[in-house]
Amino acid sequence: MSLRFTEEYPEVGAAFSMDVKRILFSGRSAFQKITVIETVHLGKVLLIDDRVMLTEVDEFVYHEMISHVPLYSHPGPRNVLVIGGGDGGTVREVAKHPEVEHIDLIDIDRQVSEVCLEYLPGVAHKLLAEKVNCRFEDGIAYVKQTKKKYDVIIVDSTDPVSVGEGLFTEDFYRDCLEILNEDGILVNQAESPAFTGEWVQQIARKLHNIFPWSSFYQAHIPSYPSGHWLFGFASKKYHPEKDFQESHYHLHNLDLKYYNSDLHFAAFALPNFVRNLIEEA
Amino acid sequence: MSLRFTEEYPEVGAAFSMDVKRILFSGRSAFQKITVIETVHLGKVLLIDDRVMLTEVDEFVYHEMISHVPLYSHPGPRNVLVIGGGDGGTVREVAKHPEVEHIDLIDIDRQVSEVCLEYLPGVAHKLLAEKVNCRFEDGIAYVKQTKKKYDVIIVDSTDPVSVGEGLFTEDFYRDCLEILNEDGILVNQAESPAFTGEWVQQIARKLHNIFPWSSFYQAHIPSYPSGHWLFGFASKKYHPEKDFQESHYHLHNLDLKYYNSDLHFAAFALPNFVRNLIEEA
Repeated sequence: MSLRFTEEYPEVGAAFSMDVKRILFSGRSAFQKITVIETVHLGKVLLIDDRVMLTEVDEFVYHEMISHVPLYSHPGPRNVLVIGGGDGGTVREVAKHPEVEHIDLIDIDRQVSEVCLEYLPGVAHKLLAEKVNCRFEDGIAYVKQTKKKYDVIIVDSTDPVSVGEGLFTEDFYRDCLEILNEDGILVNQAESPAFTGEWVQQIARKLHNIFPWSSFYQAHIPSYPSGHWLFGFASKKYHPEKDFQESHYHLHNLDLKYYNSDLHFAAFALPNFVRNLIEEA
Repeated sequence: MSLRFTEEYPEVGAAFSMDVKRILFSGRSAFQKITVIETVHLGKVLLIDDRVMLTEVDEFVYHEMISHVPLYSHPGPRNVLVIGGGDGGTVREVAKHPEVEHIDLIDIDRQVSEVCLEYLPGVAHKLLAEKVNCRFEDGIAYVKQTKKKYDVIIVDSTDPVSVGEGLFTEDFYRDCLEILNEDGILVNQAESPAFTGEWVQQIARKLHNIFPWSSFYQAHIPSYPSGHWLFGFASKKYHPEKDFQESHYHLHNLDLKYYNSDLHFAAFALPNFVRNLIEEA
C-alpha cells in the first residue's frame, strides 16, 4: 500500500503531495486539527488543519529567517515575545542569542507544543529551556493586557484564516507597537507573494499604517505554497540593513543552515512584482 | 469532470499538481513528448516528457534571470548563443538588449518551437525576430564545430537526463569555453539545491574545472521542483558584481517583472546549505 498526503492550494488550483510512511499522531484540540506524519523523504511533518506547518528537512529556513533577521538588526535584544510558534522552532533559534535573557512564548494551543515535544523534539526541545516561559493563551488578549515590554516580537502564526486571523489585524499590530520598547522590532510570517498576493498586500497596508517603518524580506521554503515566502519587518527605530549587528554576528558564529550575513541584506532585495504588490498596497 | 496534471518529484517522494481545463496539444517529436495544457489558474503550461518547462504565470522569473544577469555583467554582449530554449522565452529577454546584434538559438527539437509559436506566442514570438537565427540541430555538435565566437552563451536546457544530459558534461563546457570570446560568459540552468543537490554538485565541479571563475545565483520559481532554483555563472573575465553594467541597466530601463539591479547582486547571496553543497563539490 502506498500512502500520500496532499495539501491543496485552492487559490491557484494546485496541490503539493508527499509520500507518507505512517501517521504518527492525529488529534483535534479545542482549536484545530493536529497531525504528525512520517514521510518517505521529507522527515516528519507537522500539519495543522491539513496544512503543512513544518517538515524536518526545511523547517530551518523558516525558523532561522524569522528569528535571526530581527535579532541581528537590534543591538540588545534582551526580551523577546513569540506569538504562535508552539512547535518551538522559533524559540530554538531565538535562544541561540546570548543577549536574549528572556523569551515569552504565547500560543493558544497547548496541544501543539505537547505533540511537538513528543514527536518533533529536535524542533521543540528549547520550549523547556530555562529562559523560555510558555503560556498557552490567546496572543491577541495577551498583547492587549500585558504590562511587559519587549525588544523584539515575532509573530509565528498560521495563515490569516481561522485561529490565525486575529494576528493579522491593525488592532493587534497597534497593541504590539504599544508593548515594544522605543527601539523595538516586530517580524511576522507574511505569506506567499506568488500564490496569495492579496494577503501580502493586506499585511503591507496594515504594518505601514501602524509602524514608523516597515518592509518585507524573502526566503525559499520548498514545503510552503509556491516556495516563495515573505516575512514582514516593522520597526520603531532600527533599519535591518543600516543597523545590522555585524560584531554580534561574527562573535556568536552560530552554526546555521540558511541564514548568513550576506543573506541578511540580500533577503530584502525583492523582485519587481513583489515590490509592485507592496507599493500598490 | 475535473482534470488534474501531476508532476512527480521522485527524488524527494513528492509531487506538484495543477487543475487543468484542457489539453491544447499533445505529441511526440523525434526526441521527446511535448504537451501544452491550459490550466485553471496558472495559464498555459508547456510540458516536456511530463515535466513542467514553463507556466505562463511564472515563466518570467526563469527567462529574466537566465538572461539579464549575464547580459548586465558584460559591457558589450553583441553575439549571444542560446542552446536549448526552443520555447523562445530566453530569446525574448535577450532581444531586449540593444547591444545584442545577433542571437543564435540552437535547439535539437524544431517541434518545441513550432508548438510554442502556435500555443504560447507571448513566450515564443521573438524566435521570428530579425536578429534571431534559429537552427534546429544538436547543440553539443554545434559548439564542437562552429567557427563563430560569442560574448555570452546561455544553456537553457532540460534536466541532466535523456536529451538534456549532454549539455552538462565537461566536454560540452570545454567546447563552450573555446567558442567564447576572451571576455565571454556562460550561464546555465543549474537545478534545485533543495531537491536535487547532487546535480548541483556535479555542475559546480565541472564548471569549476573548466572555467577561470564560476559561481551560482538563485531565484524563486514556484512551478519548478522546490521553487528554489539555481543558475550557474561561469566566466573568463567578468565578475557579475564587480562588472555590473549599471549605466546600461539604467539607460535601457526595461519593463521587467522579476529582475532588478538590487536582485542582480542579491541573487548571488546563497544560503549556507547551498554554499556547503558547492564547496563540498
